[in-house]
Amino acid sequence: MNNKIVLYILGKVMMFLALFMLVPFLVAVIYGEKAGVYFLLTAIASLMIGFALSWKKPKDKRFYAREGFVVVSLSWIMISIVGAIPFVVSGEIPNMVDAVFEIVSGFTTTGASILTRVEDLSKCMLMWRSFSHWIGGMGVIVFIMAIIPMAGGSNMHLLRAESSGSNVGKLVPKMKQTAIILYGIYMALTVIMFIALHISGMPVFENLCHTFGTAGTGGFGVVSDSIGSCTNAQQWIITIFMFIFGVNFSFYYLIIFRKIGQALKMEEVRWYFVAYISAVILVVWNVVEVVGNMGDAIRHSAFQVASLMTTTGYSTIDYEVWPSFAKGILLLVMFVGGCAGSTAGGIKISRFVIGFKALAKEVKKLIHPQRVKITKMDGKAISDDTTRMVSIYFLVYIAIYVFSFIIVSIDNFDFETNFTAVAATLNNIGPGFGEVGPTDCFNIFSPISKIVLTIDMLIGRLEIFPMLLLFMPSTWKNK
Amino acid sequence: MNNKIVLYILGKVMMFLALFMLVPFLVAVIYGEKAGVYFLLTAIASLMIGFALSWKKPKDKRFYAREGFVVVSLSWIMISIVGAIPFVVSGEIPNMVDAVFEIVSGFTTTGASILTRVEDLSKCMLMWRSFSHWIGGMGVIVFIMAIIPMAGGSNMHLLRAESSGSNVGKLVPKMKQTAIILYGIYMALTVIMFIALHISGMPVFENLCHTFGTAGTGGFGVVSDSIGSCTNAQQWIITIFMFIFGVNFSFYYLIIFRKIGQALKMEEVRWYFVAYISAVILVVWNVVEVVGNMGDAIRHSAFQVASLMTTTGYSTIDYEVWPSFAKGILLLVMFVGGCAGSTAGGIKISRFVIGFKALAKEVKKLIHPQRVKITKMDGKAISDDTTRMVSIYFLVYIAIYVFSFIIVSIDNFDFETNFTAVAATLNNIGPGFGEVGPTDCFNIFSPISKIVLTIDMLIGRLEIFPMLLLFMPSTWKNK
Repeated sequence: MNNKIVLYILGKVMMFLALFMLVPFLVAVIYGEKAGVYFLLTAIASLMIGFALSWKKPKDKRFYAREGFVVVSLSWIMISIVGAIPFVVSGEIPNMVDAVFEIVSGFTTTGASILTRVEDLSKCMLMWRSFSHWIGGMGVIVFIMAIIPMAGGSNMHLLRAESSGSNVGKLVPKMKQTAIILYGIYMALTVIMFIALHISGMPVFENLCHTFGTAGTGGFGVVSDSIGSCTNAQQWIITIFMFIFGVNFSFYYLIIFRKIGQALKMEEVRWYFVAYISAVILVVWNVVEVVGNMGDAIRHSAFQVASLMTTTGYSTIDYEVWPSFAKGILLLVMFVGGCAGSTAGGIKISRFVIGFKALAKEVKKLIHPQRVKITKMDGKAISDDTTRMVSIYFLVYIAIYVFSFIIVSIDNFDFETNFTAVAATLNNIGPGFGEVGPTDCFNIFSPISKIVLTIDMLIGRLEIFPMLLLFMPSTWKNK
Repeated sequence: MNNKIVLYILGKVMMFLALFMLVPFLVAVIYGEKAGVYFLLTAIASLMIGFALSWKKPKDKRFYAREGFVVVSLSWIMISIVGAIPFVVSGEIPNMVDAVFEIVSGFTTTGASILTRVEDLSKCMLMWRSFSHWIGGMGVIVFIMAIIPMAGGSNMHLLRAESSGSNVGKLVPKMKQTAIILYGIYMALTVIMFIALHISGMPVFENLCHTFGTAGTGGFGVVSDSIGSCTNAQQWIITIFMFIFGVNFSFYYLIIFRKIGQALKMEEVRWYFVAYISAVILVVWNVVEVVGNMGDAIRHSAFQVASLMTTTGYSTIDYEVWPSFAKGILLLVMFVGGCAGSTAGGIKISRFVIGFKALAKEVKKLIHPQRVKITKMDGKAISDDTTRMVSIYFLVYIAIYVFSFIIVSIDNFDFETNFTAVAATLNNIGPGFGEVGPTDCFNIFSPISKIVLTIDMLIGRLEIFPMLLLFMPSTWKNK
């Protein structure tokens, strides 16, 4: 392990975290809130530590996958702890476990809250929660990569470790350029959404919070009923943008560079579209009677499926009262998630596509052992390595799921609550069913469960392996 | 596809089914029940069809994996339909969907019932239910293989398709001998269990039913409260034998042939033991307060964990009222299941062991890409093919699970009921939680759900692939 370079990059992360904290500080200044001072103080402390760590550029430039995983997971743990400090010292979320839960929920774009009434928070705290979604959506380290030159050769491993999906594609040969393009698209879409909501008449503060929450597919709201009190037009705007931010960003890249034919052929995006539309149709069919009329049924279903599939977690209605079939479909899309290379969480469409292709191949092999065909995705052969990693991903995912479920069960809530609390955090969604439904909060759990669910959020956002490697002794051996 | 040989073996299966039906007929004669005549008539019809199908031994002896899968899955579908006839024509279970559910539940050693009061059935019907567990436990085709010479070269493919586990080992080079040894051990253990229960004072009829139900890890009882009204000693005897029948039969083979050291080194059996003991300890810890005293807590926990882990499904107590953590552990062992090469269902210990070894290998590879080690089980290298098939198994398992869950959800029961109804059938257990708990029955479901759950039982018993191939067009192409 090249410790020096790890610490150097961690220092940079701390400095950028300080920069990000100026946003809630600015909000506090505008609204004259005293709590803003805590952001300023934390930012100054963070900046100083950052300077100290990255004072000297390390000479040893060795940087491999291992270093990439370690930097990314340590960064996320660090920003979670530092990011929670303003909540605690301001007394608005006095308990450290709760505060870390809340900010991890923010950075990982989960949107699960331990607050019973979000309205009680000051505006700068609300902005920090929502802004953390935006930072975490595309990734803090990817952001840094786009801005400053990093230590040589580290870029690829960092981008791989922090981005979502089974096979992170470089958009262009240079990683730094890829990071710039990704953040450029992200920024542009964010601005367009802000304008759309602005035209619809949403006040600027709410608009910013909702835009950040949607862009990062996070889901923190500014009022307890989430999006329920927004106008129908605003709900539709959010629906559309939730869907948009769940698409693989390579799609937009191809569109921008006029490779529209290639964009439309992207298998993952096609399946994402098919899965979304099918789920909406099934839910509408099942809930139209409960909701009352077709128009509302379509609006709520389109919103709720987009919200849970992209793992945003906003809600326009208490879907908890919907019939079991609709809830079953919602639960299913919670696991499916969005596309790789988007800000959405979940297992990701591409993993399912690869999994099913591998499956089809094996079944054919059973019948005709001699004839083995190559499986392809987007015209390129899927390597055996990719297939194996996807299978392994499912296995570890299940193992972590089961372990978390068992620990959370100790709190003795019902099966639905325990099962969906893990689903909602490990898939970075936010709300689940039962006691953690859209109108409830995660405050009911014991500290141990909260810690487990916090770790699940980090594992979910970083897609298991970076966090897993952190706990393997051989990661730290110096060889 | 070699259709002639498929029909020939199906004919043999029909003839043996007729033979098996003499057991309930005999019970009817002893107890003077008129319903016995339906078994006799069905047996005669089955025998005649069997003769017709296997009249001419086919000349074309080609028999590959494909034929093996098809023969096994068609046989199981056939015996399920024919085996349900006595229930229907006697009027004791007049609905065909219900009757097929019940006998599939028997043959697949599930033990889930659609009967609200089993006591209302006549004794010959009760015996048929329990005896079907015994037949299905080791497999009807394996039984036939042990008795008569089958068409050349078919043995290996048939044994593979019908037996449980990821890598069916031949105990001895000849498949026919392997089948004889397996059934020999099965028979011997069954007799020992019968003697033990007989000494404990259980009446012969109940004893036979419980012994068959335990040996096959089935779980059909003769009274509604399952094993609750048995004495403590009888409950312990059943606990021990449930555990015994969940062990890989190779273990007993090695013991018999004095290879005790080799037997004790079997990794799967070791993990089975560790998993069982750990689960019992955790459940005892969690339920001792609810149950009242340590002795009863240990007895009920040891029984219930053995029952659900080996997928038998007997119960001594309504574990539905236990706290969530204990129920979580019980749910977990329901998926784990017993050893490969036992009569138990579930996913099987060996698949988990292989899965985790593959996982450990991949994680190490991430850290040190150059150093790749071979993964071993019981001292032998695990081939990449085995690992891949295990991964694929998990994927298809999940896909079938999700599909069934969604369909069953249409009936609009609660989440726990829907989720565990699928778990209880796909893992061949019997009872679940919620509305399908140990004191409930599967009668609540719509016919569509019952059909889906019936198919799940067959898929679970035959471990997915034989049933899956039946629905693939390429299986039936003549090339």
